[in-house]
Amino acid sequence: MKFTRFMVSGETETLNGIIEGNTIKEFTGELFGSRTFTKRTFPLGDIQFKAPLVPRHIIGIGRNFAAEGGEKPPVPDMPILFFKPLGTVVGPDDPVFLPRGTEEIRFESELAVVIGKTARNLNPEEADEAIFGYTVANDFGAFNYFHPEGHWTIGKAFDTFCPLGPVLETDFDYRTARIKAAVNGIIKQDSSMERIITPIDVMISYISRFMTLMPGDVILTGTPAGSEAVRDGDVVDCFIEGIGHLRNRVKAQ
Amino acid sequence: MKFTRFMVSGETETLNGIIEGNTIKEFTGELFGSRTFTKRTFPLGDIQFKAPLVPRHIIGIGRNFAAEGGEKPPVPDMPILFFKPLGTVVGPDDPVFLPRGTEEIRFESELAVVIGKTARNLNPEEADEAIFGYTVANDFGAFNYFHPEGHWTIGKAFDTFCPLGPVLETDFDYRTARIKAAVNGIIKQDSSMERIITPIDVMISYISRFMTLMPGDVILTGTPAGSEAVRDGDVVDCFIEGIGHLRNRVKAQ
Repeated sequence: MKFTRFMVSGETETLNGIIEGNTIKEFTGELFGSRTFTKRTFPLGDIQFKAPLVPRHIIGIGRNFAAEGGEKPPVPDMPILFFKPLGTVVGPDDPVFLPRGTEEIRFESELAVVIGKTARNLNPEEADEAIFGYTVANDFGAFNYFHPEGHWTIGKAFDTFCPLGPVLETDFDYRTARIKAAVNGIIKQDSSMERIITPIDVMISYISRFMTLMPGDVILTGTPAGSEAVRDGDVVDCFIEGIGHLRNRVKAQ
Repeated sequence: MKFTRFMVSGETETLNGIIEGNTIKEFTGELFGSRTFTKRTFPLGDIQFKAPLVPRHIIGIGRNFAAEGGEKPPVPDMPILFFKPLGTVVGPDDPVFLPRGTEEIRFESELAVVIGKTARNLNPEEADEAIFGYTVANDFGAFNYFHPEGHWTIGKAFDTFCPLGPVLETDFDYRTARIKAAVNGIIKQDSSMERIITPIDVMISYISRFMTLMPGDVILTGTPAGSEAVRDGDVVDCFIEGIGHLRNRVKAQ
């Protein structure tokens, strides 16, 4: 199923729905709990997609893709992890702002895993059960705000630095997926998800051993080679086959 | 005013109230919004304090105190910041767990600032207006989970690693406060808040320039010298004069 949060053209309320063909069937209730269909439907052409959920946490992993070809490095004993605050989240077609003072802001096309169950001390083989679905993320970072002693916190945390969308797909096999990004229509990233270093089930298991994962927690699973600095006016497209296509324009502030 | 979240002995519901003398006056509604007194009151002796709020984010600052005496280092251009996830929060008298595999877990007594207004691009002289109140925090960290390349994310993020309480005090002047900690009754930290390196108003201004601060965001403002590793069974007390005294026992898992 493809879950969406959306806004009808000319209105201001964010609605929830499930996409079937070219139609959205609206529901009320909880994304991770009990849902009731309202019987209202909306044609896909009339709506604006929003980020498909309001996350509880956003957890990112650093340096998690091996280049295509060549040998993969071993899974590290301790991954590089960071949090992005909730104000980073924007939806498809929302602007991503380059604040004054930031330099070398890079896009990063990523598969975002959305947790749907309380998960603690999982083994990797139990990880799939904790997953509700998947969406596309663009994990922006301002590299001149990475602390010289290694803390990425600030550089990853600027408002609008985490576009998510367009949909939250529950039927998806990441093991065979391909992930891409383009800037102004020119492909910059193009990799098989198979080039991931710490696999998603190992990542979820690892995280669940220090923090209890809960519905709404989002894990950004890393980006392939090819990420570049962007400039005012650039249009960045992130694609994951089977989920969709997330487009955002970068704007100087 | 002293805000509290509390539980009556033998019951399971968490209630909200304001402390007046030895009595809690219960209210319903929103801590940061409109509140209605229920006319129910509870004697302080009959209740268990909970963490005084459910935070939206917890933002910590690293290496932010100068030893007493000596000259203070200058305010850094870029502070060391980190996030703690929401599962770290526990209340007064709740156990803090030392998970298997963790080593050198240190307590850190800290003043926690609670944001009460949406705050973006503030100047330091506007920061006080964004503050709702203050509580005491104990910012635990597992030092063997600090990444060798400098990321503190995992070490700071274990479940139960952020006791908060006992109250959220709105009438408090941090500029003249004293902060202390004791382990098993022996004083380990004892400093004037004046020894802070990046002052709280500068810190709020700095954070508000990359992320919009919102009601419920909590900033842990750093810990003085004297933090030490703790062991199973240790009782850690954190004190800030004018706010209160936060006690937690450390338990091996």
